[in-house]
Amino acid sequence: MTIRSFHPPQRTLMGPGPSDVYPRILEAMSRQTIGHLDPMFVAMMDEIKVMLRYAFQTQNALTMPVSAPGSAGMETAFVNLVEPGDKVVICQNGVFGGRMKENVERCGGVAVMVEDAWGAAVDPNKAEDALKANPDAKILAFVHAETSTGAQSDAKTLAEIARKYDCLTIADTVTSLGGTPLMVDDWGLDAVYSGTQKCLSCVPGLSPVTFSERALDTVKARKTKVQSWFMDLNLVLGYWAGGGKRAYHHTAPINALYGLHEALVILQEEGIENAWTRHRRNHEALRAGIEAMGLSFVVKAEDRLPQLNAISIPGGVDEAAVRTRLLNEYNLEIGAGLGAMAGKIWRIGLMGCASNQRNVLFCLGALDAVLSDMRAPITSGVAVGAAMAAYKS
Amino acid sequence: MTIRSFHPPQRTLMGPGPSDVYPRILEAMSRQTIGHLDPMFVAMMDEIKVMLRYAFQTQNALTMPVSAPGSAGMETAFVNLVEPGDKVVICQNGVFGGRMKENVERCGGVAVMVEDAWGAAVDPNKAEDALKANPDAKILAFVHAETSTGAQSDAKTLAEIARKYDCLTIADTVTSLGGTPLMVDDWGLDAVYSGTQKCLSCVPGLSPVTFSERALDTVKARKTKVQSWFMDLNLVLGYWAGGGKRAYHHTAPINALYGLHEALVILQEEGIENAWTRHRRNHEALRAGIEAMGLSFVVKAEDRLPQLNAISIPGGVDEAAVRTRLLNEYNLEIGAGLGAMAGKIWRIGLMGCASNQRNVLFCLGALDAVLSDMRAPITSGVAVGAAMAAYKS
Repeated sequence: MTIRSFHPPQRTLMGPGPSDVYPRILEAMSRQTIGHLDPMFVAMMDEIKVMLRYAFQTQNALTMPVSAPGSAGMETAFVNLVEPGDKVVICQNGVFGGRMKENVERCGGVAVMVEDAWGAAVDPNKAEDALKANPDAKILAFVHAETSTGAQSDAKTLAEIARKYDCLTIADTVTSLGGTPLMVDDWGLDAVYSGTQKCLSCVPGLSPVTFSERALDTVKARKTKVQSWFMDLNLVLGYWAGGGKRAYHHTAPINALYGLHEALVILQEEGIENAWTRHRRNHEALRAGIEAMGLSFVVKAEDRLPQLNAISIPGGVDEAAVRTRLLNEYNLEIGAGLGAMAGKIWRIGLMGCASNQRNVLFCLGALDAVLSDMRAPITSGVAVGAAMAAYKS
Repeated sequence: MTIRSFHPPQRTLMGPGPSDVYPRILEAMSRQTIGHLDPMFVAMMDEIKVMLRYAFQTQNALTMPVSAPGSAGMETAFVNLVEPGDKVVICQNGVFGGRMKENVERCGGVAVMVEDAWGAAVDPNKAEDALKANPDAKILAFVHAETSTGAQSDAKTLAEIARKYDCLTIADTVTSLGGTPLMVDDWGLDAVYSGTQKCLSCVPGLSPVTFSERALDTVKARKTKVQSWFMDLNLVLGYWAGGGKRAYHHTAPINALYGLHEALVILQEEGIENAWTRHRRNHEALRAGIEAMGLSFVVKAEDRLPQLNAISIPGGVDEAAVRTRLLNEYNLEIGAGLGAMAGKIWRIGLMGCASNQRNVLFCLGALDAVLSDMRAPITSGVAVGAAMAAYKS
């Protein structure tokens, strides 16, 4: 057995996440590990909470990163809020709504599914009909930014409807946080989870979450224990809650938190509105190039996420071969379709620091060249020029 | 809001973990992030599995790191193996046996507790009596290396007893892996979980686990779904299982896995038996110094973990003040007592790369100086000399 140190290739990450990580964040990750109860570390945790509130646009006291990837953030929301027998209306328009259903059922809850087409936004009218028909529903759950399709839903309207029917909201913002407007307090969202490896440009492994007072009251008033010890907010709060002594719950992932801290410092330096504008602007340039090649988007323009571009595979093109060539010849990763979208779409991410002009032009140039070489039935060599024109407009 | 980049102080970590991290591991963590389905990354995952089998001394196919800290590794073992109504005999001799009870109950299982004194090893006879009295028990669970007390239990004998009564074993090896002999296959352990931040000298945030065929068969034969979606091995395996295509489950913590890979390369270079010897040797030197100061160990010599030294607080000493002075004046972290041991003991870790001569002498010198300065009723200035003599013997 002689396994050597691993040196990753220098990829450009333009898939559905992880996206390229800022060098400053990678450097922060390599700083010396200190204790998870060290006063200096506890002070850093407090700064993370302050900066996460800015990222989520909230004043929620309970705003912190869960010490595990986004899926654990999702599960944290469901296991804390759903008790056996609770009814949850779930709006599904992609893979992650289905995962919500799994979570509800594993908590002993009853999931009422409201289906929309994959690639479409959630229809608020259908959500309202479901709440009308299920007056005993406790929670309305939906995905703000569907990573599997690139569709954005109207979280503000969905939260208004939920409140009208006295329901809490659970919102998946894994792909929206830091990339597209997300106003937790203004919109009145109750339990919100995200990931670090998308528009925050940090490494994967942490899940920022925020819970309203209303949500926290619900957790505290539970009749049954939270089924997960690791994710039980009543316990986690003893470590993450502000002020006083921190109680040991689990050992925090110290260096990953250094990385998140740095990612949030960078977001604060840029300004979140500027980050949203940058994501929008690079999307417009990519869109110009994509359309100039004769390719089309899955999601209609007004529901499109600027940070996740789902492109329909043109007829006769071997989509996996294109991705493999981009990876092997250009060190460029773009995403495949997931679930029902497998084989039908590519997903081009422009997330966090990967949302920049260099990546847009590089990706268009590489995709154009590979498609031309494979004799795909499209106009070739025009994509980069179209994108450049969009930047100048 | 103007929060700046965080630069941690240069501590020496000699508490119960995290322990000092090898600089090579910190450097590996800062390498460029690549995709979690990238063929190069998948190849690295395979290497991690091979090297984890070496660390656990097992051939178990299902050997992998859970994407979250040790507590989630514990929960992964319990939620996958315990179904509602299942009876689990738990040997408790410290904090972590109590956490096992919480896990069993949250899975709807029945916990039968076998109590031993904190600081003592688990008594195999009492465990056998409990299995005799509970012929319907399905699992025997115990902590191999109690991080809260520094006591080591005889995992081999406990596993033999469990097999005799047709029970599976769940063993907590968070603090033993890489520091003290742990022979998963020879001893016949079934579900074993650990952490990265102890004797592997890696950063916290991952939990290596290994499951025997017998354990895996039990998971596959479940009548009910695993209550955690994130920890469901039936799903996780689709991503971590060898060969063929990897199915997306959650986004792996890429850079943390770079760190673990490097930690395991280092373990392989040193040789695991050499690592065990080194931990033993540095413990003996620390012991000589501790005893020369007139301090005493909580755990009797034959049950003592070399990597975690629980020292009784001498009468009249303000234990928190000592730790604070060590941290502030020497940048040295040692651990406080946990649970029933709070205020009664210090925990001095000699784990992973922190188990070295420099740390032993530094810690003894600093502790000796602080205690002398506080006029604690002990002989001062002799600790380092005693340790040096032990190294020379």
